[in-house]
Amino acid sequence: MDERVSEHAQLLVDWSARIEPGDDVVVSVAEDAHDLAEAVAETLGERGANPMFTYASDELTRAYLQAHDGEFEPDPDHELALYEAADVVLRLGGGRNTAAMADVPPDRKQAHSRARKGIREARMATDWVSTVHPTRSLAQQAGMAYEEYREFVYDAVLRDWEALAEEMQQLKEILDAGSEVTLRKERTDLTMSIEGRTAVNSCASVAYDSHNLPSGEVFTAPAATEGEVSFDVPMTINGKRLRDVHLTFEGGEVVDFSAGENEAELASILETDDGARRLGELGIGMNRGIDRYTDNILFDEKMGETVHLALGRAYDACLPEGESGNDSAVHVDLITGMDEDATLSVDGEVIQRDGRFRWEDGFDG
Amino acid sequence: MDERVSEHAQLLVDWSARIEPGDDVVVSVAEDAHDLAEAVAETLGERGANPMFTYASDELTRAYLQAHDGEFEPDPDHELALYEAADVVLRLGGGRNTAAMADVPPDRKQAHSRARKGIREARMATDWVSTVHPTRSLAQQAGMAYEEYREFVYDAVLRDWEALAEEMQQLKEILDAGSEVTLRKERTDLTMSIEGRTAVNSCASVAYDSHNLPSGEVFTAPAATEGEVSFDVPMTINGKRLRDVHLTFEGGEVVDFSAGENEAELASILETDDGARRLGELGIGMNRGIDRYTDNILFDEKMGETVHLALGRAYDACLPEGESGNDSAVHVDLITGMDEDATLSVDGEVIQRDGRFRWEDGFDG
Repeated sequence: MDERVSEHAQLLVDWSARIEPGDDVVVSVAEDAHDLAEAVAETLGERGANPMFTYASDELTRAYLQAHDGEFEPDPDHELALYEAADVVLRLGGGRNTAAMADVPPDRKQAHSRARKGIREARMATDWVSTVHPTRSLAQQAGMAYEEYREFVYDAVLRDWEALAEEMQQLKEILDAGSEVTLRKERTDLTMSIEGRTAVNSCASVAYDSHNLPSGEVFTAPAATEGEVSFDVPMTINGKRLRDVHLTFEGGEVVDFSAGENEAELASILETDDGARRLGELGIGMNRGIDRYTDNILFDEKMGETVHLALGRAYDACLPEGESGNDSAVHVDLITGMDEDATLSVDGEVIQRDGRFRWEDGFDG
Repeated sequence: MDERVSEHAQLLVDWSARIEPGDDVVVSVAEDAHDLAEAVAETLGERGANPMFTYASDELTRAYLQAHDGEFEPDPDHELALYEAADVVLRLGGGRNTAAMADVPPDRKQAHSRARKGIREARMATDWVSTVHPTRSLAQQAGMAYEEYREFVYDAVLRDWEALAEEMQQLKEILDAGSEVTLRKERTDLTMSIEGRTAVNSCASVAYDSHNLPSGEVFTAPAATEGEVSFDVPMTINGKRLRDVHLTFEGGEVVDFSAGENEAELASILETDDGARRLGELGIGMNRGIDRYTDNILFDEKMGETVHLALGRAYDACLPEGESGNDSAVHVDLITGMDEDATLSVDGEVIQRDGRFRWEDGFDG
């Protein structure tokens, strides 16, 4: 087996999930993620953990949802019991067709998802981590050859996470101490309050409240957004390609918007609920192992020298204890490159210029 | 998809497991059993049951066992909780290599199995059913082309089970009323007591205490075996091919034995414990959809016009309430053909002659 598959498994088990002897682990295996699952099984054997493997197949889910009448029983006992008793959940993504559920009616999917709220919460209460095994289907979605895509995934995953965590800690401390963030680039001059908010150093480990491998971003929950912003990275949302999105904010809310393609989809997102017109997340991508967009949010939003803003729901980890942030049924990330004629400032001091941080280039903020 | 895959799934869900709306179902999916799993997912959707899919891969189990130090924690909580809360367990066998675990030390496998006694008991307390999806690996083990093997499996599985259950009921009633069974053929003259024992009409449905699909046998728990018996169907036990086994019984115990190949393996089985030298099962194969041996006990022992005897453990279902039958760590089935110059008699009356039953040929017992 490719040595990188074993390294991936070891990073996942040790750095990301911090698995200890005796931990009860659910390993969710997507179609075609068998090789990574085998390496994870080996690593869990070495660590003396107790794995149980589930099969996560979009094709099976589609067959079930298509046949069902849509009246789903809430939180079936057996699955709830499994996650309530688990210490760790490792999700090994993959798949053989990213469009495998394309013909399932959206309301059927939503009803199924609503009926599984307790199961989802039980899973999120474990030390869960999501990762992906590079499959041909994901390579196709990225527009890449299979071998090329494998290189891409392992460049993103097999980082020196300890070193990146230290670097990201500097940005977290600046954001935690700051009150206001400003982004400036072409057709972009946006100011957000981050007063009283806590940034997450998302370095792909549950020890840092970070649940994705790869990760490599620092994110917080902004408020009181004012100004305009352009997103030059295309994104596929609900199967629709959004391109050249431009938003204008007043008093924290979107008051004007446009998109170069599928503007109606953007309108529909903004109309979901009140929270969908406000920002829930400001994230700063710092994983330079990710050097291109692959239309997969797990990778795209972590790309070095980018910033993403999410319309909708905020993460509790960024908010003072007991305070709830922006609430919404949606969380839609939009990404903008910061590598050319762009600055990110905190309280008037430039922290990042043209993609380089102050501590990298030693420029004077 | 091949229409037979859907028919298989429907038989499994409706006839075998008797699944009702709201049942919590664990579906264990072996490597390469994806297509059957998809058809089962569809059927469970139609019935309004709640499936959860687990991934049963010998390659993952091997990787885990090879890496583990062998000190297994008993019955991990999460897996135990899953099976304790489940109503039904459907095991979809398959696999990509029947020798996938060939290099795992036997004591490691046994230690792992011993540590999972509670999980096994919880699973056996559900309405469980085992079946197989025809894979290339199983075709290879059977010495058959893939398409040929698919024909074989669906001939065995897609029976008129209701009609077969009625036919088998006749034999069950004869055995339940009888005291003594005698088998006679070349180098075979064997008498067993079945006094007070209850035969199981194993027609592939939990409603009949039958947990295999395909099934098609009537079995009971014999005692006080006397005489000699020859087994002309070869069997692979613990990776060793046993051929032309001949056993001599006195006072219920094997007192002499021989085998045309791997006699040492037979000796080792007989030495396991006291119960290994006594019979735990007399089974009469009645599935005429199975017309050849494929070195897979799920099929071989159900073949029409054969009888199998198992050394070792008896099934509780055959014994009076509270009575325990022959106990042993092993249950090794050995098969003999009854289609030529052979009779099976109960209390001196011939019930089957040269493979044909009394009610088929109308001969006078």
